[in-house]
Amino acid sequence: MKLWDKGIDTDKKIESFTIGKDRELDLFLAPFDIAGTMAHSMMLKEVGLLSEEDLQALIPELKKMYKNAQEGGFEIEEGIEDVHSQVELLLTRELGDTGKKVHSGRSRNDQVLLDLKLFARDGIMKVTRAVEDLFDVLQKRSDAHKDDLLPGYTHLQVAMPSSFGLWFGAYAESLVDDLHFLQAAWRVVNQNPLGAAAGYGNSFPLDRGLTTRLLGFDDLSYNVVYAQMGRGKMERLVAMALSSIASTLSRLAMDACLYMSQNFGFVKLPDAFTTGSSIMPHKKNPDVFELLRARCNKLMDVPNQIAMITGNLPSGYFRDMQITKEVFIPAFEDVLSCIDLMTTAVSKMEISKDIMKDERYKYAFSVEEVNRRVLSGMTFRDAYKQVGMEIEKGEFLPDTSVVNHTHEGSIGNLCNAEIKDKMKQVVAGFQFERVQDAMNKLLT
Amino acid sequence: MKLWDKGIDTDKKIESFTIGKDRELDLFLAPFDIAGTMAHSMMLKEVGLLSEEDLQALIPELKKMYKNAQEGGFEIEEGIEDVHSQVELLLTRELGDTGKKVHSGRSRNDQVLLDLKLFARDGIMKVTRAVEDLFDVLQKRSDAHKDDLLPGYTHLQVAMPSSFGLWFGAYAESLVDDLHFLQAAWRVVNQNPLGAAAGYGNSFPLDRGLTTRLLGFDDLSYNVVYAQMGRGKMERLVAMALSSIASTLSRLAMDACLYMSQNFGFVKLPDAFTTGSSIMPHKKNPDVFELLRARCNKLMDVPNQIAMITGNLPSGYFRDMQITKEVFIPAFEDVLSCIDLMTTAVSKMEISKDIMKDERYKYAFSVEEVNRRVLSGMTFRDAYKQVGMEIEKGEFLPDTSVVNHTHEGSIGNLCNAEIKDKMKQVVAGFQFERVQDAMNKLLT
Amino acid sequence: MKLWDKGIDTDKKIESFTIGKDRELDLFLAPFDIAGTMAHSMMLKEVGLLSEEDLQALIPELKKMYKNAQEGGFEIEEGIEDVHSQVELLLTRELGDTGKKVHSGRSRNDQVLLDLKLFARDGIMKVTRAVEDLFDVLQKRSDAHKDDLLPGYTHLQVAMPSSFGLWFGAYAESLVDDLHFLQAAWRVVNQNPLGAAAGYGNSFPLDRGLTTRLLGFDDLSYNVVYAQMGRGKMERLVAMALSSIASTLSRLAMDACLYMSQNFGFVKLPDAFTTGSSIMPHKKNPDVFELLRARCNKLMDVPNQIAMITGNLPSGYFRDMQITKEVFIPAFEDVLSCIDLMTTAVSKMEISKDIMKDERYKYAFSVEEVNRRVLSGMTFRDAYKQVGMEIEKGEFLPDTSVVNHTHEGSIGNLCNAEIKDKMKQVVAGFQFERVQDAMNKLLT
Amino acid sequence: MKLWDKGIDTDKKIESFTIGKDRELDLFLAPFDIAGTMAHSMMLKEVGLLSEEDLQALIPELKKMYKNAQEGGFEIEEGIEDVHSQVELLLTRELGDTGKKVHSGRSRNDQVLLDLKLFARDGIMKVTRAVEDLFDVLQKRSDAHKDDLLPGYTHLQVAMPSSFGLWFGAYAESLVDDLHFLQAAWRVVNQNPLGAAAGYGNSFPLDRGLTTRLLGFDDLSYNVVYAQMGRGKMERLVAMALSSIASTLSRLAMDACLYMSQNFGFVKLPDAFTTGSSIMPHKKNPDVFELLRARCNKLMDVPNQIAMITGNLPSGYFRDMQITKEVFIPAFEDVLSCIDLMTTAVSKMEISKDIMKDERYKYAFSVEEVNRRVLSGMTFRDAYKQVGMEIEKGEFLPDTSVVNHTHEGSIGNLCNAEIKDKMKQVVAGFQFERVQDAMNKLLT
Repeated sequence: MKLWDKGIDTDKKIESFTIGKDRELDLFLAPFDIAGTMAHSMMLKEVGLLSEEDLQALIPELKKMYKNAQEGGFEIEEGIEDVHSQVELLLTRELGDTGKKVHSGRSRNDQVLLDLKLFARDGIMKVTRAVEDLFDVLQKRSDAHKDDLLPGYTHLQVAMPSSFGLWFGAYAESLVDDLHFLQAAWRVVNQNPLGAAAGYGNSFPLDRGLTTRLLGFDDLSYNVVYAQMGRGKMERLVAMALSSIASTLSRLAMDACLYMSQNFGFVKLPDAFTTGSSIMPHKKNPDVFELLRARCNKLMDVPNQIAMITGNLPSGYFRDMQITKEVFIPAFEDVLSCIDLMTTAVSKMEISKDIMKDERYKYAFSVEEVNRRVLSGMTFRDAYKQVGMEIEKGEFLPDTSVVNHTHEGSIGNLCNAEIKDKMKQVVAGFQFERVQDAMNKLLT
Repeated sequence: MKLWDKGIDTDKKIESFTIGKDRELDLFLAPFDIAGTMAHSMMLKEVGLLSEEDLQALIPELKKMYKNAQEGGFEIEEGIEDVHSQVELLLTRELGDTGKKVHSGRSRNDQVLLDLKLFARDGIMKVTRAVEDLFDVLQKRSDAHKDDLLPGYTHLQVAMPSSFGLWFGAYAESLVDDLHFLQAAWRVVNQNPLGAAAGYGNSFPLDRGLTTRLLGFDDLSYNVVYAQMGRGKMERLVAMALSSIASTLSRLAMDACLYMSQNFGFVKLPDAFTTGSSIMPHKKNPDVFELLRARCNKLMDVPNQIAMITGNLPSGYFRDMQITKEVFIPAFEDVLSCIDLMTTAVSKMEISKDIMKDERYKYAFSVEEVNRRVLSGMTFRDAYKQVGMEIEKGEFLPDTSVVNHTHEGSIGNLCNAEIKDKMKQVVAGFQFERVQDAMNKLLT
Repeated sequence: MKLWDKGIDTDKKIESFTIGKDRELDLFLAPFDIAGTMAHSMMLKEVGLLSEEDLQALIPELKKMYKNAQEGGFEIEEGIEDVHSQVELLLTRELGDTGKKVHSGRSRNDQVLLDLKLFARDGIMKVTRAVEDLFDVLQKRSDAHKDDLLPGYTHLQVAMPSSFGLWFGAYAESLVDDLHFLQAAWRVVNQNPLGAAAGYGNSFPLDRGLTTRLLGFDDLSYNVVYAQMGRGKMERLVAMALSSIASTLSRLAMDACLYMSQNFGFVKLPDAFTTGSSIMPHKKNPDVFELLRARCNKLMDVPNQIAMITGNLPSGYFRDMQITKEVFIPAFEDVLSCIDLMTTAVSKMEISKDIMKDERYKYAFSVEEVNRRVLSGMTFRDAYKQVGMEIEKGEFLPDTSVVNHTHEGSIGNLCNAEIKDKMKQVVAGFQFERVQDAMNKLLT
Repeated sequence: MKLWDKGIDTDKKIESFTIGKDRELDLFLAPFDIAGTMAHSMMLKEVGLLSEEDLQALIPELKKMYKNAQEGGFEIEEGIEDVHSQVELLLTRELGDTGKKVHSGRSRNDQVLLDLKLFARDGIMKVTRAVEDLFDVLQKRSDAHKDDLLPGYTHLQVAMPSSFGLWFGAYAESLVDDLHFLQAAWRVVNQNPLGAAAGYGNSFPLDRGLTTRLLGFDDLSYNVVYAQMGRGKMERLVAMALSSIASTLSRLAMDACLYMSQNFGFVKLPDAFTTGSSIMPHKKNPDVFELLRARCNKLMDVPNQIAMITGNLPSGYFRDMQITKEVFIPAFEDVLSCIDLMTTAVSKMEISKDIMKDERYKYAFSVEEVNRRVLSGMTFRDAYKQVGMEIEKGEFLPDTSVVNHTHEGSIGNLCNAEIKDKMKQVVAGFQFERVQDAMNKLLT
């Protein structure tokens, strides 16, 4: 007997291997599978493949099931391999043959395609809302601390004066660019794949435009071969957008960890956010930021994982796609919990005052001095040389009282209002209401 | 002496290591550095940091230099470390002190930031045009071959009838989604970073709004800390968009390689696109598609390379950014040559006729037969079982004459016009004309 | 209230975020944490930090606990955050203050370091055994089918005759090279980190050599800063070795999927390994191979995930390391189940006979013909040209009866015995017995 | 005309696209292609496929050519597509038909396979030597600074006393583990693929054992299908080993950048290693370390690039492999220049004294104090609590005079000699002499 053989017979091993984490992950898809079944049924009735009576029986069952799924009550029973089978089972149990009829003109392939798009659409809405919250907190703190200076670094060398206004505000503006990518993901996601069947369409007279309208999609993924090819591609593109947000958070967390070091001492977190050490009685560690950083870095790899799985596969469905669910579905929970915790942490962060008074930051004011001399008529090259020599001789005496930066986006002119405007425009571009209205109409 | 020591002294080694590939790569940035210098000079004059005479001297020099760069005549002289120094040198050589003045209120940091964004903007325009060409060729071939069937596969098993109309058309539609991401990249790119200086702004009274308008940017990257933080982030986001296009091309190339195998025999390429073997006299190998595939797969890794370089760095400039240029700048040439060659290859591809007549594809018609029986009143489950049993017994006789698929996006109803419409809308969203008008106005 | 806010208060959110999947993953570490505690206790006694009585009380408790963990009975109680706390709790519950004493001269940092290395060591042993099984099955099938020809492809174009003997045998030899990397991982893993404490050692007079011997390590990770720095590095290196095995399996699975296509028809799997389609009654899909391929491709990305998390972090412990556990620990179960299933699948695979009789493979014999003429005195260039022209004119008549390949590693001379020898040598290099003897002595 | 069309005709475009960077990269392979041709010729003569006269004519030509290549004089002429053609051309030019005969029993496929392995073997030798140099410098500095303390950090929080002895020594020990992987790569590389032809062997009576001995290989890659499959796999495995070294260097560079910040001030580099700023007169930036870090991080991605290119390809040669050369070949130059520069930088680094005198590091001594009380009889928990309370009340007065760490690998007992021993053993395991002797015998 092999060392690592647990005595499971081959058939069971194959079953367990092929089901994988589907039963667990499919729970996330349940409400969307039900909504899709609702829209599909209504369409089948319109094109004459389902009777009015059948539809009247199906709708209340599906609404009830949807409500249950929304409330977390949906379960996949022992022995049932995925959400699609479970939904069909529940319908058949209640409605007999009528329950079976909803499978006409659909394959499990295009059900998963649809479920994943509806799931991603819902996730993108939640992520956008969460990003807006974080954006607001960052801007609020930026405004509140616009006069609190800290050293700006290049090469981790003290360079020029910066401010907490700039620092918080920078991450807010970064989120605006992240949302451009999330919106691109939204445009890809919000196209209806239903009707692709196994990826080659079929001979039923489906009305794909109708399910598109019922489910609030902007448009169709028309070509059925492409609709199928979108599997894997869609997940990778969405993951790219999430990875962009993750990279903003990861960098902010890195800054915070650095600034919390005794060697900087720029910011502090309340005790609830720090941990001690089992052997060092003096420690207050920034674990929350470290875990945020690591979790975000892991998220940044999701597109690569999907690329590794789907790369070099020809077109057409492959079972390989099942594994992308393991990577893709949890990414939303992860990114949401990271944004949420970051929002709280940023709002609770304590800011040190008078940082720039420290002797070791005085050279940060040397450019100020150079520029002051330039504005008084000296050439830049001469002023630079003169100040450089004063520094070399230890004669440089910075005037740390005034930092007179006035241009757009500088310490004295943060332009947070203009940045907020950019944010509003991007968010408006999603047109979430259209989707929410359609879903409300369909499901309640 | 060390085995691998070539006898170079330390200072030279350091110089060569730190310059790296900058002198070579910066040639790609030359026209953009010149254009940026032009806009910066005009702004300096407006805010009183440059005299009208200086500006009048600078403009014709810069225009001449730009024209030269456009025509490929710009060179970085021996001993000059980068494009910024070379431009300043040329100006100083011609105009003396006036040439030096253009450096006021700018650092090399924000020059690179600006150059890379202008370079990327130009690249995105070219890529979009190239994608449109490929899209058109794919749609043309899709229309021309809408009645030429080939087997559709799932799991690489013969599944259902597909068509060359669907196959070509699918890749056309895929490009539309790719352009959504390219547009998101465009939105990020088309914001003016100039004025960030070393990443903390400065005390000169710059008018960043003016350079924004002069250079045709949509808006500013306001916050100077963010403008700097955009370095690395911008490149990674653009690379993501390019990688999306690359993934479409890579899959198409994979399909083509498969279909050219004697085991499929669905498509052929003219001899110019194939190579022989030095030992096998019968070979015609699809090298062009293989190299397209590999080059595209390499492009798909560019975002990861940038993430590895920039991950876990705190905010603020680091010299590490120089290495991202090695990864980022060549990506545009690579993706453009891939799209170009794919466009030619697709247009020359020869399509086999009557593929489905081959005995081994007959089961592809089994779903057709099942659906036919369903539409004649049988339940799906019964029809499925019946046909399945006929297949098992070897009694299945497919009717290969008619494939009656009529719904949107299926064999009989490709919706290429609707897909073309989607393409037009995305392309219109770039508003390239605005950028081109501004650049023409500035530079001619 | 936020859309995605589930009403959990901040402290709970932080607690849940920071614990993450530790309670679940730590179960895999339990037996190793207990073994490490045993060795540490014995060492503490030797250096006088624990009394003989304390040790006599501890040892039977720890052995009992270890046995329980081995049998899957170890649990981490509600409210206990990790395996280290749980072990200490259990000891304290049974033995009072004695239980607390085992923490002297250790920090949780070096406990995790040790646990992970012991876990990885155990995993490497299991993986090696599993690889040996797969190797044996591949060689057995290679021997059995050494005369069964199939076409060899280059560029997916029919190239020259190959054989199932070569095909199975190739993957066997690939595993030998994979084990070279697994052995390198073993060398890194099998060095004792215990005693590094928080990464800077401590002032207790520990005898690290003793725990090294007790736990069967080859040597120490001496430098305590390096012992700590090994965290993340060790995981990435082990993951590289696993990814090498995964790449062998992934390619084999790809070949198998291709060969199972009706367009090849070279191999078949019993029904238990295939699935049907919900809409296509004729399908037998190679899902097992597809899932093997995808899971292996996912495994191939594990080193990159760890690199993304740990890249650009300075030396010293960071909480980020906790997230690497989520990536690292499940990799072993994944790779083991993949190897196991592949072993079964390879042993059950059915091989088609007389493949080369098919007309479309005849050109595979053209090189044979060229070489035949060369050996009869013609120059290679002339023979190549002559056969090429016969092919062009459709006059080529291959002799498919004889493939006379005799050199080492070719169809007629597989050298499986020599390859088996290489395998034996690599496996012997691990010296697993030394480790197993030490662990048996320690724990029973 | 397309915006980005440079008016090149299709055939030229295809030619340029398919040749790619081969002519440039193949120069690195030239000496190895010549050496391989020499061994192949000698073998052909032994098995009767080449006359003694032919061989006597070939050998001096090849030796001359090899010498020329070693000295950098080998060129690939305009119009010749790769190194293999160039070598054949040169031989034919000098020796007429005799030159052509060396192609018997070989294809370009197995020439590249062989060239790449010989190139990698040579590279691994150079890298190992370079690593040994860096190791020696690190150990030397570790010994010299074993009493110079600096704070040890966990979570970037001041934790416990560390020392430059530990810090330098840690990176030395890290290199030992890196070499385990390089040796695994060596084992894979040092097996002879020659004779695989196009991946399926051939009907010539080759003596592969003879070329194995002539070229100093440890063994054969026997199975010809595997020998071919090794392409891509070998490169990826070698790249993994290089990436391990790169990760050690990258982390060291990160530490150095941090320690050079004014906020740490632990180390300094001579001016030749730093750069100034074009706008800030006080800056001395650690550009060399930053570029080392970035270049190493880029190297860490090489395995992923190769995996993206080769993933999911079935067995058998594909032209895709050509692109892996672009990734693989420059990796050696990159890693060698990084190790070289790091060696110089480490040897020139200036170390600050009395760092721990700074008030802000006093809590680093708190564990020392806790342990002191434990060794005086207090329980750990009580001592920890007591010291913790003294810290809380601001009453903690550390004794910074004595750090009494004595166990293996701690500040007072670095075990550098033991680590050097480990290094020696690993290096001995390569048995480079065997390879060098064989190559000398063959080529001089």
